Amino acid sequence: MSSHHIVRDDQEPALIIANGAECSKELLGQLLEWSPLVIVLDSAIERVLELGIKVDVLLGDFDRGFDAEYYREKQYPIEIVHTPDQEKTDLEKAFDYLVTKGHKAANVLWATGKRADHTITNITNIVRFRDQLKIVILDDHSKIFLLPKHFQKWYPKDSIISLIPIGKVSGIHSENLFYPLKDDILTIGYRTGSSNHVAEDGIVSITHEEGDLILIESLD
Amino acid sequence: MSSHHIVRDDQEPALIIANGAECSKELLGQLLEWSPLVIVLDSAIERVLELGIKVDVLLGDFDRGFDAEYYREKQYPIEIVHTPDQEKTDLEKAFDYLVTKGHKAANVLWATGKRADHTITNITNIVRFRDQLKIVILDDHSKIFLLPKHFQKWYPKDSIISLIPIGKVSGIHSENLFYPLKDDILTIGYRTGSSNHVAEDGIVSITHEEGDLILIESLD
Repeated sequence: MSSHHIVRDDQEPALIIANGAECSKELLGQLLEWSPLVIVLDSAIERVLELGIKVDVLLGDFDRGFDAEYYREKQYPIEIVHTPDQEKTDLEKAFDYLVTKGHKAANVLWATGKRADHTITNITNIVRFRDQLKIVILDDHSKIFLLPKHFQKWYPKDSIISLIPIGKVSGIHSENLFYPLKDDILTIGYRTGSSNHVAEDGIVSITHEEGDLILIESLD
Repeated sequence: MSSHHIVRDDQEPALIIANGAECSKELLGQLLEWSPLVIVLDSAIERVLELGIKVDVLLGDFDRGFDAEYYREKQYPIEIVHTPDQEKTDLEKAFDYLVTKGHKAANVLWATGKRADHTITNITNIVRFRDQLKIVILDDHSKIFLLPKHFQKWYPKDSIISLIPIGKVSGIHSENLFYPLKDDILTIGYRTGSSNHVAEDGIVSITHEEGDLILIESLD
């Protein structure tokens, strides 16, 4: 294990590269620059190595005749983690791995695009790691994370913000959103807070009482 | 209104082209071939006309200085439907339009990819049209639709099938899936039926008692 595998309290998030659509090289470069640990999921390793990226951990169920051992030599030193559990997605297993190793935060790339079942599952499943790992999923158009019960962040005017309830979320209040929420209830499939935006340069506050609420910052 | 706007009971689904990522020309061509009516959402019209597609209806809130009238002449005869309601997405408004006009079914392209808030909202919001419109969202990797309480369809062995609960779904039973469900409960964010597959060539049966269950057929 290389020295940068030791987790410090204040360190930058680990980076997970999943198996969906690739993002821009610029976004990838920004996140790689500060990441203390890079985990790649399953056969995404082929596309990642083509980009000349140094990988610390290769993780997956390797269930399609994929030869993970081939990469042990090619990418030495690399940790290869075989996770055959069919009850979890590879991305959940990567989150579990990071929790076990003491990491507190993770950025995730290539988790959206391509298969819609993967996109939906990857985004919605971050809620179950609420108390274990601070997760941000990023792609060229979106930054996605689970809200704490009290959330505050500075945004420029007109920033596009969507609130996606993962199930039913109640007691939602907002400040400084163009379409304000006041003790509102959002329910996935029936009433979501998609495509809201920031009213004025300044702090946006969003609080909620019950349920799992995801925020998506969007770029067109 | 041209004659093909008259809705017959047995006719093919209308086609809605939304404003997300483009699909392959092959998939687009397959759906266009049989579609009695083509609706394009908002500024997607620019990309659609570049492809030389004949459009029947242009629908949207046109809220970004977009000049819909410009297309009235360019694409004559075209119906332009201005829908400023900010409580609904353009895709929901297109579904409402089709219901009003007596249509029974719609295929939707370009509803996924690009902005993740649009992808999630577009997919999950089809549940509220359960009794009004048979909706299928398609992209190059996925075919997405809401399941009736009793669903049966023939699939070849190993077809990838994901069951995504929009909220909580209970009393789920399956036949001929590799990971069978027996009086199961699925809950979005916590337990989904992602990446199941068909056990043998033949009929797959999926029944559920309560809730909204979406099926996604996937191609890698």
